[in-house]
Amino acid sequence: MMYNTFQNIEELEEFEVVPGIVGRMIHTDKMTMSFFKIAKGAVLPEHQHFHEQTSCIQSGDFQFTVDGKTKIVSAGDHIVIAPHTPHSALTDCTIIDVFVPSREDYK
Amino acid sequence: MMYNTFQNIEELEEFEVVPGIVGRMIHTDKMTMSFFKIAKGAVLPEHQHFHEQTSCIQSGDFQFTVDGKTKIVSAGDHIVIAPHTPHSALTDCTIIDVFVPSREDYK
Repeated sequence: MMYNTFQNIEELEEFEVVPGIVGRMIHTDKMTMSFFKIAKGAVLPEHQHFHEQTSCIQSGDFQFTVDGKTKIVSAGDHIVIAPHTPHSALTDCTIIDVFVPSREDYK
Repeated sequence: MMYNTFQNIEELEEFEVVPGIVGRMIHTDKMTMSFFKIAKGAVLPEHQHFHEQTSCIQSGDFQFTVDGKTKIVSAGDHIVIAPHTPHSALTDCTIIDVFVPSREDYK
């Protein structure tokens, strides 16, 4: 990653996090901004991490569970997830996730 | 802002940064994720800040200048801006900007 550069998201390398969930990521010193495509039927199992996370749905619908609360989210919806909060998700959307600090485990 | 909540971006209060540039913002402990609508003809004068910034163009075209380099950016393009780097922008798009740390000056 270089600072003060322009790039198209499609130029970024794809990274499959779990089957059917593919991300492209920008890692800076302090954050990770990630662009995910999630295939119909894909399941993101419940997990948690020490990173703070914001998520914004770009297209499609998505069943999101955070801290035991489940909602169908759609384009324009966002979620703010505290560090160490269990969350999971189901099926078929594009989404931007931002993590602070940056995801060393995705680099 | 509350953690572990769902909300639609349209529900967030609008904040006019300069004439023609209106943002809706999510402030967490560690970041600000902002959704800007920028009217045709609006000018974001050259400025800089200590925050690290990533920007992703959602729709429209945008003339972006970072560290003296100018480019017309479009949907799918992103920019990573180092702290304290002068940048400016011209006209007519929607854009997501993320700042770390969060923007106390926008709260």
